Amino acid sequence: MAHLFLISTGPGDDGLLSPAARRALEESSEWVGYSLYFSLLGDLAVGKNRHELPLGAETERARVALSLAAAGHPTALISSGDIGIYAMATLVFELLDPANRDENFDPDWLQVSIETIPGISAMQAAASRCGAVLGHDFCTVSLSDLLTPWEVITNRLEHAAAGDFVVCFYNPVSRKRDWQLNYARDQLLKYRSQDTPVILGRNLTRDDERITFCALSELDASEVDMLTLVIVGNSETRRFINEYDGCEWIYTPRGYKTKSRR
Amino acid sequence: MAHLFLISTGPGDDGLLSPAARRALEESSEWVGYSLYFSLLGDLAVGKNRHELPLGAETERARVALSLAAAGHPTALISSGDIGIYAMATLVFELLDPANRDENFDPDWLQVSIETIPGISAMQAAASRCGAVLGHDFCTVSLSDLLTPWEVITNRLEHAAAGDFVVCFYNPVSRKRDWQLNYARDQLLKYRSQDTPVILGRNLTRDDERITFCALSELDASEVDMLTLVIVGNSETRRFINEYDGCEWIYTPRGYKTKSRR
Repeated sequence: MAHLFLISTGPGDDGLLSPAARRALEESSEWVGYSLYFSLLGDLAVGKNRHELPLGAETERARVALSLAAAGHPTALISSGDIGIYAMATLVFELLDPANRDENFDPDWLQVSIETIPGISAMQAAASRCGAVLGHDFCTVSLSDLLTPWEVITNRLEHAAAGDFVVCFYNPVSRKRDWQLNYARDQLLKYRSQDTPVILGRNLTRDDERITFCALSELDASEVDMLTLVIVGNSETRRFINEYDGCEWIYTPRGYKTKSRR
Repeated sequence: MAHLFLISTGPGDDGLLSPAARRALEESSEWVGYSLYFSLLGDLAVGKNRHELPLGAETERARVALSLAAAGHPTALISSGDIGIYAMATLVFELLDPANRDENFDPDWLQVSIETIPGISAMQAAASRCGAVLGHDFCTVSLSDLLTPWEVITNRLEHAAAGDFVVCFYNPVSRKRDWQLNYARDQLLKYRSQDTPVILGRNLTRDDERITFCALSELDASEVDMLTLVIVGNSETRRFINEYDGCEWIYTPRGYKTKSRR
């Protein structure tokens, strides 16, 4: 019986791969994940047995990882960002939960010891590049209705908007889902001003990183793809230019104006 | 003119201090922050000029950091967790924002180049130790009404509850605030079942870490202190025991039952 590491590799920048994640990657003979993640890990991947499963085969990927570890191979199940946030970790626990077991369940999986290593999620990478948009209460909303009914998502959008949360949109669009982000924008516009600051971050911390800002009313799904994270500020979020160097920043103050302007 | 690094040191575990944070700490001659954070950094702190300001002097701490960097000293402003999440980063940008400048503003601050290094926030550390509670949409709510009017917080609680978000409570209690968490619990109980899983994490990843689970109806502010993070699951969050080793896990499935049970 061997260890199963659930490993977060962060947004892509080497400098944000934690020593704990690096150590676990080194100790694992089997790597399970996407080839894109592996290629970001460079030399660390040399000599590893790679188990790549196609997009959409997430449950199968979790099964393969549990089975490899149960067979005695130290195994790494790898996600970029934080493996605990909209990623693979939760699938492993779904498979182990007595409530969900089916004919594919293998009792040996229960003997695998699991260690999860958290990592920098895309929202944190985006915020750190642009100021401090996550300085006050925020929420995350996935716009994918593949596994979540659209009514649940619209209800969540309504409350994210009415609660004045900074909102981080994960999975904002895909090839088949091109209108949900515009719907979300319109929901937010019922509660927030047209010029509410928005951050679009693509390939964060990587060589081809692209970060742009816009006003909420200008947000358009046609300018966003699967690799983009979208963050919309709350009613207090500010965007300003440093007049000395031209740098533009977006931040959410820690308090509300009435009290913080002392 | 020198660099100002806004540095996240994560929850405390060495293995979660990123290489980028370590490098920036090494490059900085001036360290600005709490003594508690410094002591967690061990040998890295040797030879640094430490600028410690008392709890409550957060704005002053940001001013000191900007002024040290403006005077030509490479400077580190240090927060545990993620400096961008309920922490010091946003204060630096508040001070630079033309809308907030007062008699203490120093134009030299505008010439400081700022680099922010994100880190593992307490919610991520807690989730990684207990399963995958952040596997689907979640929000963060600070229960501190020092700078945020209580009406704003209650509105946010109402929408966090009605939107069925997993909720991470930062600043759940303090010596002077002992009832807000129980109020929040009661708001959530209007929408969620009594046995909704709750995680209480204290001193996460440190030697004296203490993690406990309870049901939402059992959550009580008297068992929580300033150093505790509280995470409440959503309506789908599950808690189960691995019958082989007795390990207990909490996770939030990536989908909703009707669709995910295929």
